[in-house]
Amino acid sequence: MTYTLVLLRHGESDWNEKNLFTGWVDVQLTEKGREEAARGGRLLTEAGILPDVLHTSLLRRAITTAHLALDAADRHWIPVKRSWRLNERHYGALQGKDKKQVRDEFGEEQFMLWRRSYDVPPPAIEAGSEFSQDGDPRYADAPEVLTECLKDVLERALPYWESDVIPDLKAGKTVLVAAHGNSLRAIIKHLDGIDDETIAGLNVPTGIPLVYELDDDFKPVVKGGRYLDADAAAAAIAAVANQGK
Amino acid sequence: MTYTLVLLRHGESDWNEKNLFTGWVDVQLTEKGREEAARGGRLLTEAGILPDVLHTSLLRRAITTAHLALDAADRHWIPVKRSWRLNERHYGALQGKDKKQVRDEFGEEQFMLWRRSYDVPPPAIEAGSEFSQDGDPRYADAPEVLTECLKDVLERALPYWESDVIPDLKAGKTVLVAAHGNSLRAIIKHLDGIDDETIAGLNVPTGIPLVYELDDDFKPVVKGGRYLDADAAAAAIAAVANQGK
Repeated sequence: MTYTLVLLRHGESDWNEKNLFTGWVDVQLTEKGREEAARGGRLLTEAGILPDVLHTSLLRRAITTAHLALDAADRHWIPVKRSWRLNERHYGALQGKDKKQVRDEFGEEQFMLWRRSYDVPPPAIEAGSEFSQDGDPRYADAPEVLTECLKDVLERALPYWESDVIPDLKAGKTVLVAAHGNSLRAIIKHLDGIDDETIAGLNVPTGIPLVYELDDDFKPVVKGGRYLDADAAAAAIAAVANQGK
Repeated sequence: MTYTLVLLRHGESDWNEKNLFTGWVDVQLTEKGREEAARGGRLLTEAGILPDVLHTSLLRRAITTAHLALDAADRHWIPVKRSWRLNERHYGALQGKDKKQVRDEFGEEQFMLWRRSYDVPPPAIEAGSEFSQDGDPRYADAPEVLTECLKDVLERALPYWESDVIPDLKAGKTVLVAAHGNSLRAIIKHLDGIDDETIAGLNVPTGIPLVYELDDDFKPVVKGGRYLDADAAAAAIAAVANQGK
């Protein structure tokens, strides 16, 4: 008996396209992102993997990706749970800033530290900033979050994994988690037991379902799982790796 | 203290446009239907009515309408519950049939009886019909439904109203029910205490939020509620009334 988990990173958003730090800013998918999402749903159908329950963040790029993917897979009617704990990493004062400008202003080393270090968060977002989540009703019940490193994401995502995702898996459900680059990296780090340095090199491509079969201890039967379009995933991962060169 | 309920009928679907009996057949919205849904969300924003929780059917035309309306109202992140009990009326053997052909074949009187009588269901859909819900996994936990009159819809919708909608209202939440012409007519019949004959003349326009303030007994403060675009609602209702003439 194994449990089936599907991880899906949202498709391209307006701010991916514009090369801005997004974090908790609630931007829309681009048309390309919408197509990626629907294709993700078709890949699920072709693989015969039918989600029984959906978990998403509170951000529309994940919510819409899930909606489009599940509609394409004829599973739009399954139950949904959402949590801020699946949100993208909060990018602090960098939210809304151009990535190239930040790199030019602060230098490559600091830029990479903020982007890829496990435990160095960017400066906190200022109260009243255009891109702060101050007073946003969806976070009324969440603790205040002003910036996060990946370690912070893992520490707030894991309680949800334990309290909400594991019980659905235990009940024999095929679980779809539609979320973000960093909340999914956090879950993958936990599942695959990846150390704090190695996780820096791990990227999750957008819109390609990543399927894990988990054993009785909720550990992967095959480390790293399998992408439903392995070639496209490898190409996307290689493209990201080459961006820095 | 009053409770706030918003009823929203899905926008135009592919089969509304083609003039086919739809029922539980799970068709898509048209582009016009998608625009109606988004406009419904903008009307909510303009009125300052912000849903805290969503209830939908298991059919994509209601699910997508809610998704688009809530996204437009920046409330896409609220909790969702879905139930077959909010589905459109099951149209039995008429599902998938052209309305004009049915009228020509069975005559105006029989046609209107099936469409508008309170307690005369169409013939049951045949097992194995292209448009039956046989074996559809979303109905695995529901009793078998092969045809319905409006009375049947009311009898299966009310238990959900009591068990799931009322508790959300009681908790002080603004509740959005995104559903279908007949499941909403059933709820309205119950709320407004409309008799079995009068309900035949009641139509709910697509895509225009209908807001009810409910008192401590969950009865409307104002019978009939209020449409957020009263002029557009009146025009749509008049257009339907004139269709039969």
